[in-house]
Amino acid sequence: MKKVGEHVTIDFLGVKRDYSPDFYSKAIYKIAKKAKIEVLNISEKVFKPQGYTCLALLAESHMSFHTFPEKGIISFDFFTCGKISPTAALDILKEEIKYDRVVVRSFDRSNKGVYEDIYSTPGHKKYML
Amino acid sequence: MKKVGEHVTIDFLGVKRDYSPDFYSKAIYKIAKKAKIEVLNISEKVFKPQGYTCLALLAESHMSFHTFPEKGIISFDFFTCGKISPTAALDILKEEIKYDRVVVRSFDRSNKGVYEDIYSTPGHKKYML
Repeated sequence: MKKVGEHVTIDFLGVKRDYSPDFYSKAIYKIAKKAKIEVLNISEKVFKPQGYTCLALLAESHMSFHTFPEKGIISFDFFTCGKISPTAALDILKEEIKYDRVVVRSFDRSNKGVYEDIYSTPGHKKYML
Repeated sequence: MKKVGEHVTIDFLGVKRDYSPDFYSKAIYKIAKKAKIEVLNISEKVFKPQGYTCLALLAESHMSFHTFPEKGIISFDFFTCGKISPTAALDILKEEIKYDRVVVRSFDRSNKGVYEDIYSTPGHKKYML
């Protein structure tokens, strides 16, 4: 069985600036262009007193941003069934966001490899039912 | 530093039925009730000739469904900064969806554990920059 897609989660730590909603939608379109995917819809919410969420519905799955300004964290995820790896987003975001550290996880969704990869680690639990 | 949240990805394989959009929004509200989180917005898209995407913007991050009927796969993910683990979704979905196998991944986002957990496995690549 072919995999259905790839998923990447990227967490930026030590972010000092609270970027505007516009910043995130621009980033989404920039990533979409690079990954050759189509953005169909963006839904967003500015939280009070702080925090922002942005979900992009793609012709090839989704992207999301969640910000936690009180913790200096921007959490991004990108699941795509397109041809280009979602890790393509990393270079763009690293240029746009000022941060101290970034934690990246990338994994395939629903492919044979998932069966073969039976490891779990302290921070990552994986199992099949 | 406290973690900002937990993320779970659940892939149902060997799904025979093509459920209606209504099925997925009901599932989202059922999970939200159990996880004690608030659904602020749901955006969805029915693809031609097949496939469906549904993104739920939560007061506590997001949930998503992507279906690939041609492959018999339903891919779900749930990132929450709420108090109840997103794996709470698993019991509900297992009851609602008929499938052969399910692959679950659960991991913390942006916490100290991420630094301590330096392992990568064949199907899961993790790194810090």
